[in-house]
Amino acid sequence: MINWNNMDTLASYAALKAAEPVKLAAAMTGENGAERVKKYSVPMGCGLDFNFGARPVNDEILTIMADFAKEQQLVEKFAELYNGAVVNTGEKRRVLHHMCRGQLGEAVQADGVDKREFYVGEQQKIAAFANKVHAGEIVNAAGEKFTTVCQIGIGGSDLGPRAIYLALENWAKVTGNLKMKAAFISNVDPDDAAGVLSNLDLAHTLFVLVSKSGTTLETLTNESFVKDALVNAGLNPANHMACVTSETSPLAASPDYLAAFFMDDYIGGRFSSSSGVGGCVLSLAFGPEVFADFLSGAAEADLLAKNEDLLKNPAMLDALIGVYERNVLGYPNTAVLPYSQALSRFPAHLQQLDMESNGKSVNRFGEPVNYVTGPIIFGEPGTNGQHSFYQLLHQGTGIVPLQFVGYRNSQMGSDVVIQGSTSQQKLCANVAAQIVAFACGKDDTDLNKKFEGGRPSSIIIGDKLTPASLGALLAHFENKVMFQGFAWNINSFDQEGVQLGKVLAKKVLAHDTDGALKVYSDLLNI
Amino acid sequence: MINWNNMDTLASYAALKAAEPVKLAAAMTGENGAERVKKYSVPMGCGLDFNFGARPVNDEILTIMADFAKEQQLVEKFAELYNGAVVNTGEKRRVLHHMCRGQLGEAVQADGVDKREFYVGEQQKIAAFANKVHAGEIVNAAGEKFTTVCQIGIGGSDLGPRAIYLALENWAKVTGNLKMKAAFISNVDPDDAAGVLSNLDLAHTLFVLVSKSGTTLETLTNESFVKDALVNAGLNPANHMACVTSETSPLAASPDYLAAFFMDDYIGGRFSSSSGVGGCVLSLAFGPEVFADFLSGAAEADLLAKNEDLLKNPAMLDALIGVYERNVLGYPNTAVLPYSQALSRFPAHLQQLDMESNGKSVNRFGEPVNYVTGPIIFGEPGTNGQHSFYQLLHQGTGIVPLQFVGYRNSQMGSDVVIQGSTSQQKLCANVAAQIVAFACGKDDTDLNKKFEGGRPSSIIIGDKLTPASLGALLAHFENKVMFQGFAWNINSFDQEGVQLGKVLAKKVLAHDTDGALKVYSDLLNI
Repeated sequence: MINWNNMDTLASYAALKAAEPVKLAAAMTGENGAERVKKYSVPMGCGLDFNFGARPVNDEILTIMADFAKEQQLVEKFAELYNGAVVNTGEKRRVLHHMCRGQLGEAVQADGVDKREFYVGEQQKIAAFANKVHAGEIVNAAGEKFTTVCQIGIGGSDLGPRAIYLALENWAKVTGNLKMKAAFISNVDPDDAAGVLSNLDLAHTLFVLVSKSGTTLETLTNESFVKDALVNAGLNPANHMACVTSETSPLAASPDYLAAFFMDDYIGGRFSSSSGVGGCVLSLAFGPEVFADFLSGAAEADLLAKNEDLLKNPAMLDALIGVYERNVLGYPNTAVLPYSQALSRFPAHLQQLDMESNGKSVNRFGEPVNYVTGPIIFGEPGTNGQHSFYQLLHQGTGIVPLQFVGYRNSQMGSDVVIQGSTSQQKLCANVAAQIVAFACGKDDTDLNKKFEGGRPSSIIIGDKLTPASLGALLAHFENKVMFQGFAWNINSFDQEGVQLGKVLAKKVLAHDTDGALKVYSDLLNI
Repeated sequence: MINWNNMDTLASYAALKAAEPVKLAAAMTGENGAERVKKYSVPMGCGLDFNFGARPVNDEILTIMADFAKEQQLVEKFAELYNGAVVNTGEKRRVLHHMCRGQLGEAVQADGVDKREFYVGEQQKIAAFANKVHAGEIVNAAGEKFTTVCQIGIGGSDLGPRAIYLALENWAKVTGNLKMKAAFISNVDPDDAAGVLSNLDLAHTLFVLVSKSGTTLETLTNESFVKDALVNAGLNPANHMACVTSETSPLAASPDYLAAFFMDDYIGGRFSSSSGVGGCVLSLAFGPEVFADFLSGAAEADLLAKNEDLLKNPAMLDALIGVYERNVLGYPNTAVLPYSQALSRFPAHLQQLDMESNGKSVNRFGEPVNYVTGPIIFGEPGTNGQHSFYQLLHQGTGIVPLQFVGYRNSQMGSDVVIQGSTSQQKLCANVAAQIVAFACGKDDTDLNKKFEGGRPSSIIIGDKLTPASLGALLAHFENKVMFQGFAWNINSFDQEGVQLGKVLAKKVLAHDTDGALKVYSDLLNI
């Protein structure tokens, strides 16, 4: 029996608020600090470890968090989800993205099919299509191979796939897995499409249109933009386009596509990277085997999220530490700081994943909650961020919890030794140094040079950024966000907050406005 | 006589706190709302307007803000700055970046020269160099023209120039001003340099090394990385590199560069886009005339920042509304949301500009301040952001003030009409709609579909993103950040918060660690 209770009804939440907070700077100094860092580490799958030595917890607080996880039935709620319950209460939908990468529980029958079979079947269709493109069996009108794939999509049909492509592009180059270059068009700004197209060899580009509903304004507009460009180049768009959509969308049966691959309403946009939304472009770019490796890494992380033991469930642990920092300690932001240039757009994807899922003020029953929910997520790769916004993180008037990511080895293996160390060693030395600088600080009689410390962080450490470890990393954050939604008793899977803007934009375009909206429309010459 | 007082000593600040806050949703609804939007608009130079109709102010609060500006002597402090006073108290330096684009006050003699003449002289050297490269007078060893420029720099030597390049690349393509493509290497992560280099035609690439001190670890390391790659390709690095540095740096007199261009300690990294740091790469990419247009736009905005009348000084007004939102209304974040894909990296630059300048806890005398200072800055282009984190902005438990930017016309002029409107019209309709949706909200008996409204924003509206209007946009934000620093009585021009991490990273690389730092170092295999 699952109880969907608001967080402030929980005895364990009251206990968390009553617990004595950790004095992080003191706790992380000296040999005690060393012991914490050794002890507070949990495997995440694919060789990754979640090290939370510098987060503001201790054994007592962790024990209360374990009570919280039990009292709020977090693992049971996850089981409800993967066994096919309608946990997306607002839209009355199941939430089945985990099933793209594994069968975590019971078979789920819906729409007259076994859902796992359906998702795997679409993956197999995509794999066959990609293999044909790579083998030169699907070619352009001149009989030549496609060299580039360009995804047209926005939001969840853009950010995740783009972040993953960028994360693996250089890895693929050095391992011989870069089958096709990828490009992305997302914004309704016509300069986005025009700018991207100006860099493409249209005759050898295969476009993948991605819209679950088949009605996304930006995506359909950009499709027309691309079709015009193809026609102007003397090319037939039907030879250059595939689509990923739902079987019920207007695109599904259109003759305008080389192929159509299907997802369904149980895969939310921001959770769709492991469905055909990510699968098509990534299988074309890197080959289906690489995408399969990515999925297997995600599946490995998903299995850990089933674990009832909080200290063996890194996503649930990360989630609850985040709730503690947000609701008990009162920190409004979280920064994501990968020490890996390849993860340059990973924070932008997490920004959607987290803020669109948990930026809510009502619970899953539509009643207001009396506590804050999802934080603001931002971030850039290190060491770049050190030379940008870290000043505020170290010495600003607020505290921002930090999520570092670091790898022992580079992807490409090219390096240079300067002053006795490689660039990779310098990169790693910097992230180690930052964690300790943030946590412990440094006293100084010149207060301008003083660091208060007490600024919490965790680090996810891996050997190397590979398809599998990237899958595990992504699934960790997807599951973390899900567990936080369960903790707050909100529905992490709808996004009603995006609707009003759409409605008003339509009014503007129909010149059906008054008041301030009319003035803004006039100022913008619409 | 200038008084450098903490903000909480000001009578006008007490008055601001005592003033009745604006009920924004009500104020923005109906004809009153229309009047606000018409009235609350200030020219910013280069055809830009700063429209603050949807910010939480009214005539009464604006009057108190004008008192605040006078009491805190904001315009006089700006005059101190451009007349050469040592306003960077921590590092005991003048702050002269405005002088790269105009002479706002008295001539400033320092280091035995007239500083305006020095900066203009370096611009002329750069222009002559760029013209020779474009004319094929400076060529590679095979006598062939350079086609690409690649900047090696980090932080202020990367974010601003990169954001500006991306902002103008498509404009330059369609106007025939793209003389050379530009690339950027910044991160010490060896995959950054290796990845960028794998896309370059080394034989036809000119590298520009940018480091004011000539000692920036990341930049020197990446220089070596690039030199190795050039040598391995059978090329002589000295034929492929120029540098931008200070006259006193170890790079200045080195024979390893085709040319060396100088800046000085009075140009802070994050304010250096209008110096040679931006000037060299941008003059090579677009030609010196385009860079001169950019500077003239910045100069136009600077002139407005001298205005004592708050309602004719958009940077000062924007600054004070921001202080009001931060310190009186208690909002910890600000989002920057350009409805222009070309400005994709402009928020990342503003993130450094703002957070590194004003993320401080002590005043300019090194004494703690008793109020919060700089906010967290983040943002992505619209409409992309609408499909990502806007959910939280609309319905999350906190309020985030928003800074929109929009242009009536696209840069490239290619467009498509779908459902009766162009993409550019759709883009503009969306930003107009969002402002009103955030401000006014929408009631609904289903609370999941209710929008509280009351979420403040302003919009900067222009005709088109051009070099001049981009210069004005950048200078607006530089001056806004400066005025906020004056308001808070902090030193916006140093960055002591970046030092501790550097010191600890060196210890890690020297294996001179203990405690937690040693454990992290071991975990990362350093």
